[in-house]
Amino acid sequence: MEFYYYTLFAGIIAIIYALFAAYITLKKDEGNKKMQEIASAIKSGSAAYLNRQLKTIAIFAVILAILFLFLPNGYEITIAFLTGAIASYLTAYLGMNVAVRANVRTAKIAEKGTNAAFKTAVIGGSVTGFAAVGFGLIGLSLLIMYLTISKVEILIGFGFGASLVSLFARVGGGIYTKAADVGADLVGKTELNLPEDDPRNPAVIADNVGDNVGDCAGMSADVFESYAVTLVAALLIAYGISHASVINFAYPLYVASIGVISSLLALLFIDVKGENATLALYKGIGSAVIIAAILDFALTWYLSLPLTYFYSVFSGLVLAILLFWITDYYTGRGKKAVVKVANAAKGGGGTDVIMGLAVGLRTTWFPAVVIAIAIFVSYISAGLYGIGIAAAGMLSLTATILTIDSFGPITDNAGGIAEMAGLQEHIRKVTDKLDAIGNTTKATTKGFAIGGAALSATALFVAFAEAVGLSSIDALNSIVTIGIFIGAMMPFIFSSFLMEAVGKAANLMVEEVRRQVKTIKGLLQGKAKPDYARAVDIATVNALKALVIPELIAILTPIVIGLILGKEALGGLLVGMIPASFMLALFMANSGATMDNAKKYIEEGHFGGKGSDAHKAAVIGDTVGDPLKDTAGPALNSMIKVVSTISILLAPVFMAYTLL
Amino acid sequence: MEFYYYTLFAGIIAIIYALFAAYITLKKDEGNKKMQEIASAIKSGSAAYLNRQLKTIAIFAVILAILFLFLPNGYEITIAFLTGAIASYLTAYLGMNVAVRANVRTAKIAEKGTNAAFKTAVIGGSVTGFAAVGFGLIGLSLLIMYLTISKVEILIGFGFGASLVSLFARVGGGIYTKAADVGADLVGKTELNLPEDDPRNPAVIADNVGDNVGDCAGMSADVFESYAVTLVAALLIAYGISHASVINFAYPLYVASIGVISSLLALLFIDVKGENATLALYKGIGSAVIIAAILDFALTWYLSLPLTYFYSVFSGLVLAILLFWITDYYTGRGKKAVVKVANAAKGGGGTDVIMGLAVGLRTTWFPAVVIAIAIFVSYISAGLYGIGIAAAGMLSLTATILTIDSFGPITDNAGGIAEMAGLQEHIRKVTDKLDAIGNTTKATTKGFAIGGAALSATALFVAFAEAVGLSSIDALNSIVTIGIFIGAMMPFIFSSFLMEAVGKAANLMVEEVRRQVKTIKGLLQGKAKPDYARAVDIATVNALKALVIPELIAILTPIVIGLILGKEALGGLLVGMIPASFMLALFMANSGATMDNAKKYIEEGHFGGKGSDAHKAAVIGDTVGDPLKDTAGPALNSMIKVVSTISILLAPVFMAYTLL
Repeated sequence: MEFYYYTLFAGIIAIIYALFAAYITLKKDEGNKKMQEIASAIKSGSAAYLNRQLKTIAIFAVILAILFLFLPNGYEITIAFLTGAIASYLTAYLGMNVAVRANVRTAKIAEKGTNAAFKTAVIGGSVTGFAAVGFGLIGLSLLIMYLTISKVEILIGFGFGASLVSLFARVGGGIYTKAADVGADLVGKTELNLPEDDPRNPAVIADNVGDNVGDCAGMSADVFESYAVTLVAALLIAYGISHASVINFAYPLYVASIGVISSLLALLFIDVKGENATLALYKGIGSAVIIAAILDFALTWYLSLPLTYFYSVFSGLVLAILLFWITDYYTGRGKKAVVKVANAAKGGGGTDVIMGLAVGLRTTWFPAVVIAIAIFVSYISAGLYGIGIAAAGMLSLTATILTIDSFGPITDNAGGIAEMAGLQEHIRKVTDKLDAIGNTTKATTKGFAIGGAALSATALFVAFAEAVGLSSIDALNSIVTIGIFIGAMMPFIFSSFLMEAVGKAANLMVEEVRRQVKTIKGLLQGKAKPDYARAVDIATVNALKALVIPELIAILTPIVIGLILGKEALGGLLVGMIPASFMLALFMANSGATMDNAKKYIEEGHFGGKGSDAHKAAVIGDTVGDPLKDTAGPALNSMIKVVSTISILLAPVFMAYTLL
Repeated sequence: MEFYYYTLFAGIIAIIYALFAAYITLKKDEGNKKMQEIASAIKSGSAAYLNRQLKTIAIFAVILAILFLFLPNGYEITIAFLTGAIASYLTAYLGMNVAVRANVRTAKIAEKGTNAAFKTAVIGGSVTGFAAVGFGLIGLSLLIMYLTISKVEILIGFGFGASLVSLFARVGGGIYTKAADVGADLVGKTELNLPEDDPRNPAVIADNVGDNVGDCAGMSADVFESYAVTLVAALLIAYGISHASVINFAYPLYVASIGVISSLLALLFIDVKGENATLALYKGIGSAVIIAAILDFALTWYLSLPLTYFYSVFSGLVLAILLFWITDYYTGRGKKAVVKVANAAKGGGGTDVIMGLAVGLRTTWFPAVVIAIAIFVSYISAGLYGIGIAAAGMLSLTATILTIDSFGPITDNAGGIAEMAGLQEHIRKVTDKLDAIGNTTKATTKGFAIGGAALSATALFVAFAEAVGLSSIDALNSIVTIGIFIGAMMPFIFSSFLMEAVGKAANLMVEEVRRQVKTIKGLLQGKAKPDYARAVDIATVNALKALVIPELIAILTPIVIGLILGKEALGGLLVGMIPASFMLALFMANSGATMDNAKKYIEEGHFGGKGSDAHKAAVIGDTVGDPLKDTAGPALNSMIKVVSTISILLAPVFMAYTLL
């Protein structure tokens, strides 16, 4: 039997599980009328955003699809491209639609205690995780089945489809979620002294919608993209190195298929013993890694492949664990660095932010060192191919990581619904606790997403060099140097637009909230309902408006550089961009997470607790950190992959036409 | 006559002018007893810091000098190293010692109007500028005279000596100045509502000392370093390409000598017509560039060298102007981006900082593009040698740039002295205006310093490749990839320590100020004098304490990578580090400058003016921006040059011994 039947089968299993998990979730009790009402507002806001975002993506996708028809093998590439885009959107759609139903069910079942609520949120989250790997494997397997292996370069279309959707979902979702969050907090908490998720805050529904479109849909598109492009990169490298060897071609897909099994088994280990739910989630990841390592070893042995292949895959798995650990070490609740930032808040908002940025900058060193080691180990084990399969090994954890990540927005929403619906104290305690766990795991999975993006971009870089036929990219060549400088600049200018968009949209949100408080009588007394839809609309419109420029920067820069300066300069661009973007993303994401948790640390009663001057200072730090960690930082992941995939996709063009 | 007599002569002219300018400055009236008292406190604080810093440097320098003796040509290298270090320190010493005397004289003469005060500050500042180029040219000429051209690699010792001093001066001075500034502001302005430079603030002298040790001594060491290493890099490249050609060797030194003449002539154009003093300073730079371009053209023609050499030099000159312009465009007073940040301050400290960071990120694109173009133009004009002479062209403006830069701390101090001595309103108006101009020019000269550092580091990178005998540095080689990742990480981890040091030291300063306000009776009523010396001591001790780790990171990382992974990895490290550091430095320096000017814009009466909520928010932004723009950002300049020079210096070691 051809190898792609096996991988198709693995993908189908993943989808069956995802549907099963969705079924279980939907069967659960969705609580009283008030809860359903709130949940329905979140649900329809999220769906409305995803639909409108789809329209914007569709415009870009259609234009690109038409242009791709002019490429060699244009017809096949266009099909692959649309398949990738659809697979990515299906993942986000299915995952998020279950998440916005799992939230209220988690809130409801929380009356039965932490354990039950925890499980509901995990199962709800697992839909996203398994949908991602399922659609990824099915899409790739079908393409390989119906196209032909000798036209492997077509597969990059699939990767680019995933990339395009991811770029939109990350950028749009990121701006949406933080415009709503920052806007809601600035007036709600600071001016009106309302608690988080207070139903009197007009932006509260938008805030909860943001969790879904940003942390759930955006993150799933990002990791799906890493998954897809990593596999494509590995296939391209395999093909470039040994045209004839089907086994080298199949191996990374097998590793990914093993990921389905190990992630399914790992679900059994994600359970709460006593009260430590964080530990439960980490057990999940740990077991997924161990099971995957054992099965990957067995696979390599069974196929009689060199054991060095396994070493490469293993280095990817270890990298994932280490990135998880270091993020937690620096940004986890109550960790030394977090307390340091909280302590600095005593000096005011300025010193809080200074120290928060210092911690974020600090967090780059360990990931940089371990990713360098992983690249080196995989390279000396199996050459450039080793880098591809190391990335495949790391990304084979996708289902588990996304499960744990989607747990975040579900519990966050559950907490919000419990608060807004005025559920009893003991229930809200449960949802608050889960929400807190979700916050930590969201931060740590972000470390994985950033590392995964960097490693898969490195694999894509190798694939790019093969695609354009470069056997070396020499930094002493000044045309390459130009590319390096432009590339290193890209993450900075790209995130500039995102930061600005959040700042602007948050300000509009602030004005709208202030307006509603002023004009709707009885709002603050809880006698009149705010106009939630208006706030949802502001976040939606502004996120979509702010999408365009960053998208164009990411898509057009490599095209312009490639057409004017040629393939060497474009190679230089990737060389400059990938590491700079990796560091900037780590800096941003971890600064934000640390300042967030420093605020929470103070809220737990340290340094004066809630309402103290230190708390006010920490709230400022949290506000600054919000777009850093949830908008700009994560969007860089998508940017580097889009730039890398389009560079490969247009390789034939750059080889044929160049100005210089 | 040998060429080095000409360049020696140019250096001597520069020093004669510097001494003459110092003499003119010292002859001026130093005001009443109270002014002298204040100035004397600043003077002794500054001198004390520089002396104590010297001791720390001496320890490092002696250890390194001994180790260098073991290198091939160790004896000569050690001499060159010590010459470079001494020349750099002499520049900082002479420049700063005149600056701390020019400040009070500027304050005194301000009673005669803007014009007189402006001239006094410019002449005082020009001492630093001409001392730098003078000591640079004399040092290099003497070394070439007494050593031999065939041992040109020895000259890198001179560059490293300058680098070492610069690293200490930038890091130490940067931490000092911002610990004092932030500390003074946090309690003084925010808690006690004291105006800037109020004599009742115990940290006010430390704040003024900081301007001198940071903006004057630190900046002069930084630009001196760029000047020195650029010339050395150009000489190394020239030698590597054409051993025998004395003219290629002399050319960059001639270009630098022309810089002395053009900078001297440019002084004539720096005068105030009407009231526009900013314009006067910019006229100075513009005229320096035009004169230099004409003379460089004449030189190239006279020496019958290819005109392409001139194109390279010219691209360096144009780059300097463009970097000046773009910094002003984004961060200048009342500019669009600044107003945007000020407007965001209405939403609170959080949105102010978000927008400030967005602007800082945005500022990277233009410098990245123009430096890429400059590198490319100079390369296609004259090959790798072109990059070296382009850098020499840019840095030939050093005397003018440092003159304009040192104008900043002098007028800043003059404003402080006028305020503390309670001079009349109309005098303080003059000093305030000059102070404001100094703030803008300080920001724009920083753009030059960052660009100069990046370009000279690029030239050093080329020289490094020659020194270790690499004809290509291939980013597809995974050992190079490791280096790239580590290199891109270095600026992040390095600045992390600086940000943290400022945060910590500022907190200690805050505590000390609070303590004095509490324990010294009658302090706030102006009846008792604060203990200024204690505050000065805190800044001094903490700056020196925080020096060590960042120094070790900068010096040891390239050594460790070179010894363990070898020269290719070290080349990769430079490839990753230089552009990432360039972008990060621009982002940091410009974010800070924009938030600073946004605060000032509000203080001018916009968005509610002083004391409004927007103003409080902008003060927070300014606090965050302080260490970004004056500590971490500029220190990156020194870091990349230290890393580059030590990599070249130890090239023979890396070629002989490597673990892998």
